[in-house]
Amino acid sequence: MGIVLRDGKIVTDTVCYQADIRIQGEIIAAVGSQVAQAGDTVLSAEGCYIFPGGIDAHTHFDLPVGAMSTADDFASGTKAAILGGTTTIIDYATQFKGETLKQGLENWHQRAGGKCYADYGFHMAITDWNDNVSREIPWLSREAGVSSVKLYMAYKNVMQVDDSALFQVLERSRECSILTCVHCENGDIVDNLIRKFRQQGKTTPAYHPLSRPPRVEQEAVNRLMVLSETADAPVLVVHLSCREALETVAKAKDRGVQVFAETCPQYLVLDDSMYQDTSFSCAKYVISPPLRGKENQEYLWNGLKAGILDTVATDHCSFNFHGQKEVGRGDFSKIPNGAPGVEHRLGLLYTYGVKAGKISLTQFVDKVATQPAKLFGIFPKKGTIAPGSDADLVIWDEQRQSTIGAATHAHKVDYSPYEGMKQQGQAIHVFLRGQHVVKNGKVCTDNPKGQYLFRKPFQNPKEKTK
Amino acid sequence: MGIVLRDGKIVTDTVCYQADIRIQGEIIAAVGSQVAQAGDTVLSAEGCYIFPGGIDAHTHFDLPVGAMSTADDFASGTKAAILGGTTTIIDYATQFKGETLKQGLENWHQRAGGKCYADYGFHMAITDWNDNVSREIPWLSREAGVSSVKLYMAYKNVMQVDDSALFQVLERSRECSILTCVHCENGDIVDNLIRKFRQQGKTTPAYHPLSRPPRVEQEAVNRLMVLSETADAPVLVVHLSCREALETVAKAKDRGVQVFAETCPQYLVLDDSMYQDTSFSCAKYVISPPLRGKENQEYLWNGLKAGILDTVATDHCSFNFHGQKEVGRGDFSKIPNGAPGVEHRLGLLYTYGVKAGKISLTQFVDKVATQPAKLFGIFPKKGTIAPGSDADLVIWDEQRQSTIGAATHAHKVDYSPYEGMKQQGQAIHVFLRGQHVVKNGKVCTDNPKGQYLFRKPFQNPKEKTK
Amino acid sequence: MGIVLRDGKIVTDTVCYQADIRIQGEIIAAVGSQVAQAGDTVLSAEGCYIFPGGIDAHTHFDLPVGAMSTADDFASGTKAAILGGTTTIIDYATQFKGETLKQGLENWHQRAGGKCYADYGFHMAITDWNDNVSREIPWLSREAGVSSVKLYMAYKNVMQVDDSALFQVLERSRECSILTCVHCENGDIVDNLIRKFRQQGKTTPAYHPLSRPPRVEQEAVNRLMVLSETADAPVLVVHLSCREALETVAKAKDRGVQVFAETCPQYLVLDDSMYQDTSFSCAKYVISPPLRGKENQEYLWNGLKAGILDTVATDHCSFNFHGQKEVGRGDFSKIPNGAPGVEHRLGLLYTYGVKAGKISLTQFVDKVATQPAKLFGIFPKKGTIAPGSDADLVIWDEQRQSTIGAATHAHKVDYSPYEGMKQQGQAIHVFLRGQHVVKNGKVCTDNPKGQYLFRKPFQNPKEKTK
Amino acid sequence: MGIVLRDGKIVTDTVCYQADIRIQGEIIAAVGSQVAQAGDTVLSAEGCYIFPGGIDAHTHFDLPVGAMSTADDFASGTKAAILGGTTTIIDYATQFKGETLKQGLENWHQRAGGKCYADYGFHMAITDWNDNVSREIPWLSREAGVSSVKLYMAYKNVMQVDDSALFQVLERSRECSILTCVHCENGDIVDNLIRKFRQQGKTTPAYHPLSRPPRVEQEAVNRLMVLSETADAPVLVVHLSCREALETVAKAKDRGVQVFAETCPQYLVLDDSMYQDTSFSCAKYVISPPLRGKENQEYLWNGLKAGILDTVATDHCSFNFHGQKEVGRGDFSKIPNGAPGVEHRLGLLYTYGVKAGKISLTQFVDKVATQPAKLFGIFPKKGTIAPGSDADLVIWDEQRQSTIGAATHAHKVDYSPYEGMKQQGQAIHVFLRGQHVVKNGKVCTDNPKGQYLFRKPFQNPKEKTK
Repeated sequence: MGIVLRDGKIVTDTVCYQADIRIQGEIIAAVGSQVAQAGDTVLSAEGCYIFPGGIDAHTHFDLPVGAMSTADDFASGTKAAILGGTTTIIDYATQFKGETLKQGLENWHQRAGGKCYADYGFHMAITDWNDNVSREIPWLSREAGVSSVKLYMAYKNVMQVDDSALFQVLERSRECSILTCVHCENGDIVDNLIRKFRQQGKTTPAYHPLSRPPRVEQEAVNRLMVLSETADAPVLVVHLSCREALETVAKAKDRGVQVFAETCPQYLVLDDSMYQDTSFSCAKYVISPPLRGKENQEYLWNGLKAGILDTVATDHCSFNFHGQKEVGRGDFSKIPNGAPGVEHRLGLLYTYGVKAGKISLTQFVDKVATQPAKLFGIFPKKGTIAPGSDADLVIWDEQRQSTIGAATHAHKVDYSPYEGMKQQGQAIHVFLRGQHVVKNGKVCTDNPKGQYLFRKPFQNPKEKTK
Repeated sequence: MGIVLRDGKIVTDTVCYQADIRIQGEIIAAVGSQVAQAGDTVLSAEGCYIFPGGIDAHTHFDLPVGAMSTADDFASGTKAAILGGTTTIIDYATQFKGETLKQGLENWHQRAGGKCYADYGFHMAITDWNDNVSREIPWLSREAGVSSVKLYMAYKNVMQVDDSALFQVLERSRECSILTCVHCENGDIVDNLIRKFRQQGKTTPAYHPLSRPPRVEQEAVNRLMVLSETADAPVLVVHLSCREALETVAKAKDRGVQVFAETCPQYLVLDDSMYQDTSFSCAKYVISPPLRGKENQEYLWNGLKAGILDTVATDHCSFNFHGQKEVGRGDFSKIPNGAPGVEHRLGLLYTYGVKAGKISLTQFVDKVATQPAKLFGIFPKKGTIAPGSDADLVIWDEQRQSTIGAATHAHKVDYSPYEGMKQQGQAIHVFLRGQHVVKNGKVCTDNPKGQYLFRKPFQNPKEKTK
Repeated sequence: MGIVLRDGKIVTDTVCYQADIRIQGEIIAAVGSQVAQAGDTVLSAEGCYIFPGGIDAHTHFDLPVGAMSTADDFASGTKAAILGGTTTIIDYATQFKGETLKQGLENWHQRAGGKCYADYGFHMAITDWNDNVSREIPWLSREAGVSSVKLYMAYKNVMQVDDSALFQVLERSRECSILTCVHCENGDIVDNLIRKFRQQGKTTPAYHPLSRPPRVEQEAVNRLMVLSETADAPVLVVHLSCREALETVAKAKDRGVQVFAETCPQYLVLDDSMYQDTSFSCAKYVISPPLRGKENQEYLWNGLKAGILDTVATDHCSFNFHGQKEVGRGDFSKIPNGAPGVEHRLGLLYTYGVKAGKISLTQFVDKVATQPAKLFGIFPKKGTIAPGSDADLVIWDEQRQSTIGAATHAHKVDYSPYEGMKQQGQAIHVFLRGQHVVKNGKVCTDNPKGQYLFRKPFQNPKEKTK
Repeated sequence: MGIVLRDGKIVTDTVCYQADIRIQGEIIAAVGSQVAQAGDTVLSAEGCYIFPGGIDAHTHFDLPVGAMSTADDFASGTKAAILGGTTTIIDYATQFKGETLKQGLENWHQRAGGKCYADYGFHMAITDWNDNVSREIPWLSREAGVSSVKLYMAYKNVMQVDDSALFQVLERSRECSILTCVHCENGDIVDNLIRKFRQQGKTTPAYHPLSRPPRVEQEAVNRLMVLSETADAPVLVVHLSCREALETVAKAKDRGVQVFAETCPQYLVLDDSMYQDTSFSCAKYVISPPLRGKENQEYLWNGLKAGILDTVATDHCSFNFHGQKEVGRGDFSKIPNGAPGVEHRLGLLYTYGVKAGKISLTQFVDKVATQPAKLFGIFPKKGTIAPGSDADLVIWDEQRQSTIGAATHAHKVDYSPYEGMKQQGQAIHVFLRGQHVVKNGKVCTDNPKGQYLFRKPFQNPKEKTK
């Protein structure tokens, strides 16, 4: 006995068409007309779009930062995710100084295990590269189901690695079919600009963006391109935020460098006018890279359209304004970096992208589901609507309207960077591997049904398909 | 009662998965498992790929050139097409000097009507732009089913239009949702280089490529980009052949110009070493743009992968070596330009692209079927495998091997530019709107079943989807 | 017996130093200390700069345009020139349709002969290219002393030539050591934009700049670069006005194209805010290319500094506002294009360039004197201060201040585009070939002493020096 | 009583003209005709060029490298210099780890004092940046006469500094009018490539260039451009060797970055075919950056012509093949890096640049004398021929021919990288501050007359002139 979603407008990354979907167990069994079998349950999706479940490949849930932890843990974070139509998240497990990768990963399995309402995977952020860690890489890819690592070119003396480590990780990752994700900002320059501002008594949050100008992102991206070419290894630029970085990625793609790039809703719909508020409240927008000048948005939207940008993730990393962001009163460099967003990724991109005519519906699906699935080793299990794929499905009612805000969001954090912004459309029903987890816009289960995803080794989607 | 293709590996532009396809009438009814209905005919596709029928959007069948006509007419041309897995062709109807567009189109309907073994549409090549012609444009798009026109920046005093005509066509086309296809070479420079060579007694075919260096293609492409931006109208660069032109398109795409680009198998697998033959036999390769230096191929393959190049068409325009190409003995500029190829597009791209690891299977489908369908207003009727789409399907047996050559090809022309080249894989069964037209690698009908395609107005696939 | 200029600060394109200059006859005899001979006249230049006489290589004096002629003829024009420190002008003789070059040149000799207060040469503007004209080119270069020609890519149906003519002129010019100057705007696009605005009833002068956007200049420059490369011939882009064109020239120079570029004071110190005036008075600024957005100025100044721009000329082409510019009331496309400026080139560049810290003193001399002399075949006779060179010298008192305006300027035209702008410094004494022609800031001769300059064949100054 | 050089062809960076030069004491008193005074000595320079004395701004004399020192000390090095027409050298004094700048400079004063046959200055190479060193910078510029420092982005764990140090040096240098010279190669990547080759047993000198591909130079240059822009400080890229780096500098100059660049004769006339020798003898060419593919030479020559490259210096750093280079048998990374050249800079550039038609005579003077003088604070005292300047003069007989080789060169090193290459022209007489130091091609003094040059603070020559 299966479930039949009737008369929805199915949207994949390439086509939109009206047909029925038959779910059997956890899987999509058939798509078309006359696919129902005797005994099937039928749910009408008439007038609605059906998207493949969203995949947010950049979250930080339950992340310890100094003495505090992010406001959202894996339970609240993934509950918010499914409410927003995201059925898979990939979080950044982190190896802290002195740890093995195994310890780092184990730590994150502890944090997430049994709490997730969405399926979940891990990237592994490496902050302490050495020969022992290098020897763990094959295990990571082949046994631990983690086919992506992350390195930071920023956060001097904390997360930042030097080019030598980057190069060695790239070589090792190529050998082991791992994709290397990189935070691209020149941490040395940032560190000096911060130091300079502090010396000059410029300590309000408004100096945060000035300490991280677009040029330092561009420089790091260019350096990464050269490292990638020299090591012949694929890389993904996370949270790309500005025109300069975009153009550097574009040129690299045009000449055949194996580079992929992610941007985030905050860079597409918010801008640096947020920092004009001279009060401390703009600490809410202290994220890295910072919000950029409004003129960058047009470039980013075009980057999505032109395929320079492959994915849209949130970099969800929530800290309460009260008690957490406030630690940086008197010194912007002490403000914990990050903002919430996992719940609103599809809504924002649908509203300000699709409805505003910036991108097409199929591109929307591509960026929020298909490309992340392909790049992170879970396609076509996830990321598309096709017979044989997991029945991760979002029934999207484009008529529903809502307003985003801290009072109503599912995030467990005391503010929203999108406070007051309108959203068009809503995930009224969500299926996770055939299980009905959101019904009429409400989470309909107390049972965190999310499973850990053993992801496949990285394969360049432009180069070969199974 | 329908037909079920069982157990094939379905390939679309985004995904490859194993499932059954049920055809009902001319249409794909369902895809998945358990989709067969009582009374259906079953054809096993086990071990084979199933592609959407190929679309060759650049052919010249039965084209009059001076006193002669191309060797292939619509019958021989489309028979070759379906044998090669191409179920749709779009040919260039031409308005000659003094004609109305209606006359030009009527002329081509006469040539094609009742002879086509593949579905067919027309672009309209405009060589005589004036106010009356301008007034015909709405009719072309809305009533005649022709949503693309073509202009030549080359062939001075014959087909070439000036920038003023180009600009006016672009403005008119934008208003009427028409895509403007352009042959990009600076005809003034070419004309002068030819004149110079002739004055110097340099008249062998080896001077053909020297009279059309990459720079003259690059210049025309750049000029077209500026025209397109100024008129805010979409354009497609046909038969892009070299790195310089590619990079110019790449930069334009990166900054948001509405430009699309097509390349051809000849530029991907042949090179200008063909012109080293000092005998007249290299007249076989007199095409425009000419074959380029081998180093360009890598750039073109990467261009396909990176999405700078959207489609692969053949520019099939066949002239017999004996009696036709020979007209240019003693003066290379008199050799009729063109070469055959409609039969081997999928085979060449599969063999030298997919099997050689240059592009993935899904990209292959994208370039030969999905993108042409989207750009030319016949998607998703054509170009994909989805419930509701036309059952244009190619069962591709990747085990079959063959050798291309004039002795065996279906083209009605006395040579093949690909003579002796190996092909891996073959279209063993082909369905055109549910009709089985190629069976076990042979055309199984004497009845030209091809229909004329009233194409929809142009819609930028990056911008909106129904 | 000679003249000794004592204690001035001599400025050349490379160095500034204090020394005496001894003039003997028309020539500089020596530079240094203890150079005076018995019987010499001494003029103190203490506290002043001494520049080589300025060279304005782009003027249009006594130019017939339809039924009218420019307001300034060669007498008033060159009188204004020497007052401003310009001792040499090169004017654009024009071959009109149907004329030979000889006729065109003779026409201009008639206009200029016996009237010039500055030395003068001619470029030859070719508007009617054909085989007979081609045969005149060697004469032009070798016998007529004209080693530069000019072509227009704009002014469709009037001056505009097609790429074929351009290419042929370039080939011929290379053979005859002639430099080809080109007005770079895509006349076809401009023509269509004008037509469109007129159809829409948009006929005020404010539509002039909108009919000639930067993109049409950039396109023409790019095309010219390709023509120059293909013909292997040197070119000079006249009156370059915008960032886009500048960047195209920069890239071409960087890859070795023989391209030179000129800009004008109006593009450096005025901007398109002049067109915001909704009255007809902005007709004063109807020049082509039009004034650009203010942000372009920074690029142009940097272009001078970085050597992308080689010379600064005025494109002096004056029409009275009353009676001449007014012809275009009701149709901006009828307004005669041009503005005065020959008198204020050094003053504007000194004030807004040198004093404002945009360029150095030596660069100032380079752009207004040395580079034009080198490019137009009159170096080192003109353009520098060295023994053996013509004693064309400007004693510049940097303390003098003045205000530019129609009431006081020497131009014979009823308005100044620079009305009310301050000028720092003044040419208090000017020598033309040893003759004292401006004394204490006033023309001190009624005798037009200017001679026609037989210019040497073009030689790339970057490639060889005598 | 003075000296008069009669009838020579004086060449400056801008003009070539025939005139007499009168020297009085250490200074040029006058230039022109009739400049001799009673009692003057006259030396005929008829038929010869007279250049300003060459300035080699990149030498390493008496440099300690591990347990050895370079083969040439200041005596042999500067003797070779003046023989070749170079009257000024600027050597790299080095602060080693743990030293103050004062100690580093004192060390070099000890090495050079009383031994120099040419005038000499020092740059200060900083390898150990810290707050104390930062506090020494004003002293360096204002009291020690050292207005340039050098940093290495290569030589990991030895000379390499990180971006943080680079940024701080740039800020400090801007404040103190110092020019920062930078060795641009990404030392982290180089270090890893060396490690990899060693692990693979690839230890012959032929692997040296493979461990330092052009891309690592390009990356470092791009990073430097960003550092320079962010710190708003001028930089000079030393020994630029390849197209990729050149293009990066060109783009930066075009957008206004304060960047200057130097190349060396070895990159202009030698190429990486030298490394094809499988014997150890190609250790002679182990320099960093390494020799590049021959195709780069054309770009570098054009870079000189187009002004992308400002100066030509030698990076003279000589090690005997026997006993010194041989230390690296069995491990290319142990070979001391460097090669001789100070004697042949003018000869090579004249022969393979001027005579070969790559650059003009005036450009030759610009690159070997004028620009280094301007950039390093000794203009117009040095670097030009003008009244008031030092009488550093080279009488160059362009008829003399010679062959370069270890048997005849003045360098105290046992090989020449230019062995067997022809040289056209020779410095037959050389004057250093009015003193005749080379007579008929031979050093005519045993008395090292060179003086230490207190150089002026850096001033961008494009921005202001005294």
